[in-house]
Amino acid sequence: MRLSGLFTKTRKTVPSDETAKNAQLLIKAGFVNKEMAGVYTFLPLGLRVLNNISNIVREEMNKVGGQEILMPALQLKERYVTTGRWDDKVVDDWFKTKLVNGAELGLGFSHEENVATLMKEYLNSYRDLPILPYQIQTKFRNELRSKSGLMRGREFLMKDMYSFSISQKQHEEVYEKVQNAYFEVYKRLDIGDKTFITSASGGSFSKYSHEFQTLSDAGEDTIYLDRKKKIAINKEVFTDEVMDDLGLVREELEEVRAIEVGNIFSLGTKFSAPFALKVADEEGKAQTLIMGCYGIGISRLMGTIAELFSDEHGLVWPEAVAPAKIIICRLGEDPAVVEKADKLFKDLTGKDIAVLYDDRDLRTGEKFADADLLGIPYRVVVGQQNVDTQQLELKQRSHTTTKLVSYTELVNTIQKET
Amino acid sequence: MRLSGLFTKTRKTVPSDETAKNAQLLIKAGFVNKEMAGVYTFLPLGLRVLNNISNIVREEMNKVGGQEILMPALQLKERYVTTGRWDDKVVDDWFKTKLVNGAELGLGFSHEENVATLMKEYLNSYRDLPILPYQIQTKFRNELRSKSGLMRGREFLMKDMYSFSISQKQHEEVYEKVQNAYFEVYKRLDIGDKTFITSASGGSFSKYSHEFQTLSDAGEDTIYLDRKKKIAINKEVFTDEVMDDLGLVREELEEVRAIEVGNIFSLGTKFSAPFALKVADEEGKAQTLIMGCYGIGISRLMGTIAELFSDEHGLVWPEAVAPAKIIICRLGEDPAVVEKADKLFKDLTGKDIAVLYDDRDLRTGEKFADADLLGIPYRVVVGQQNVDTQQLELKQRSHTTTKLVSYTELVNTIQKET
Repeated sequence: MRLSGLFTKTRKTVPSDETAKNAQLLIKAGFVNKEMAGVYTFLPLGLRVLNNISNIVREEMNKVGGQEILMPALQLKERYVTTGRWDDKVVDDWFKTKLVNGAELGLGFSHEENVATLMKEYLNSYRDLPILPYQIQTKFRNELRSKSGLMRGREFLMKDMYSFSISQKQHEEVYEKVQNAYFEVYKRLDIGDKTFITSASGGSFSKYSHEFQTLSDAGEDTIYLDRKKKIAINKEVFTDEVMDDLGLVREELEEVRAIEVGNIFSLGTKFSAPFALKVADEEGKAQTLIMGCYGIGISRLMGTIAELFSDEHGLVWPEAVAPAKIIICRLGEDPAVVEKADKLFKDLTGKDIAVLYDDRDLRTGEKFADADLLGIPYRVVVGQQNVDTQQLELKQRSHTTTKLVSYTELVNTIQKET
Repeated sequence: MRLSGLFTKTRKTVPSDETAKNAQLLIKAGFVNKEMAGVYTFLPLGLRVLNNISNIVREEMNKVGGQEILMPALQLKERYVTTGRWDDKVVDDWFKTKLVNGAELGLGFSHEENVATLMKEYLNSYRDLPILPYQIQTKFRNELRSKSGLMRGREFLMKDMYSFSISQKQHEEVYEKVQNAYFEVYKRLDIGDKTFITSASGGSFSKYSHEFQTLSDAGEDTIYLDRKKKIAINKEVFTDEVMDDLGLVREELEEVRAIEVGNIFSLGTKFSAPFALKVADEEGKAQTLIMGCYGIGISRLMGTIAELFSDEHGLVWPEAVAPAKIIICRLGEDPAVVEKADKLFKDLTGKDIAVLYDDRDLRTGEKFADADLLGIPYRVVVGQQNVDTQQLELKQRSHTTTKLVSYTELVNTIQKET
């Protein structure tokens, strides 16, 4: 992608009401635009990041048997009346709307009711189980306050997966498998070492749910972390009893702030019983299905990564999610320079490497500042001094030093397994 | 994908209120589930079709310089008050909702206001123009009636692109380029020969807009078509004056029903003037930008293709959008048959061919009926009689005859350029 053709530009200022670091960085770099609190437009480079995160999540869900679907945002009132979740006193962040004929509808904040009724159409026998339908879809939550940038959206992209099992035992196997898939996701996103499974409140069908909490002072949660055992307890359930349950002792725990980047929840029959979602087991006996739900906020992850990976010059994207692997900074408009830079752009693109090409008529300082602000993992310079040599000046965004490399070394460096 | 693991099943019945042929076919085959009139869930195979269509549209928009973004569904009231479109008497298919604090919001039915204000952040000079931001995003329209299946959704997937130009001349060049891109899209979707550009009402800034109308008795529009000239007039503007304008004569025109599968519209300064969206031209004079908008209903296209490509046995997907290129029907559970079918599945998948593998324990007739219902372009049979021979029985969904082919011939046939 040539920057001369990209409509976004980097910005020096952000809206005065934007106090979250992640959103400030993303707005300055032209990755998102703020529409209102908790509602953002994803611009071309930002959408690439969002899609990269979605694809990693998708691949890991598919590996454990996830089947991708797409459910609607518009939700039928009657289903939520059935489960007791229509009332605004029960669910306080509903967005509601109406059909022309006056019938009330909700905008989906989560899809348990939807997916449970869907499964009534398709599941007949224990042989169909377990199954793991999931979607990557836009959720709506009418948050009273939304001041954490992309980390607390009123409209946001979420991966929500649901499991249906014939027995508690089968459910527990699935739950553990998905838990492992979540760790894979965070590892690939380069936040694995900062992300800890955290016991949180469980509800009526299980003692605990599990959150995945990424350490950050910008987080909205407080957790008590045992760094050696790599597990934590959310403050909301932090009691002696819970510590005992988990084999943790107060002296080993550290109070830290963290961002909830995922949660998994055993739902028992909470959403299957009201819809009489049952199938015959091996003995032919009808069993109400055991459900689980498994969420990952895709846009929240983008905010989290922006929050964690930056320095005073701007964003520093991990390679797996960066909008491009490398940015070519062309210095000057000399025909020989242009020819050399054009060729490099074409060659790298031809190798299926995602490349940004700064072919704009700007000063060197501005180009380097933009390359830093955008956070592209590698920067290569093509200027007058490179025309007659085979050497190119390569710099890693996360390093301060540059090194001279041949074209082959350049390709090998940026194509290395990440 | 193994059918034994897929949670959807084909169905013999559809909801009694589902009268549209496209939705009936898609529901029976397990591609979509009806949530309410005009609102569908896309199931695993249906989502594949939807994504295939999206990707074709995306590629063609990118070829003409489209830059993909993602705008939100939640819309600020104030912008629509500015353009006069907030009033339900002006726009009668709004879904509206409210923030917790009582502020009214709309759900986007189209994004002219949104994209015009967005561009104020980024456009400074005629050098930035023309630009073509677009999104593939979920739209909400509060239709009074929604009886055409996927062809008239209350919640649906749409590609909406917007152009910004410095002059009418530049706008016209862009408009023509996008028009050509639309023809490419329909050609790749195999509906090119049935799709005609059609003059329709233009609004205050241009005499006509242009629709792309695909001939079908299920269409909601009536058009007057000159088959030789390959252009048409929508009934809503069918007058002597319009015929004169277009050089058409009544005797050459045929009255036909058609489905609107796209529209392109010159907006003039209708949405740029209210927001004072202007930049300096080459003489340094501030010019209010000329806008165009370009819509394609992605889910409507899926409905249109389903409506057009079927026979009495079910769907007959064009290869470019089919959820898989080929379906392997394994007959029986004999270990040698299983081994041979498993190997074929693995080999084809390894060649990046999208394959469905019917490894279920069902009778031959049921498998063949499902393969037909699903509409997969090629069906290959692996049964007892194939174990000791190198020949495989291949059938094209759109043909009635089968032929015996070697593995190499099979691969060549289904990998041919489509």
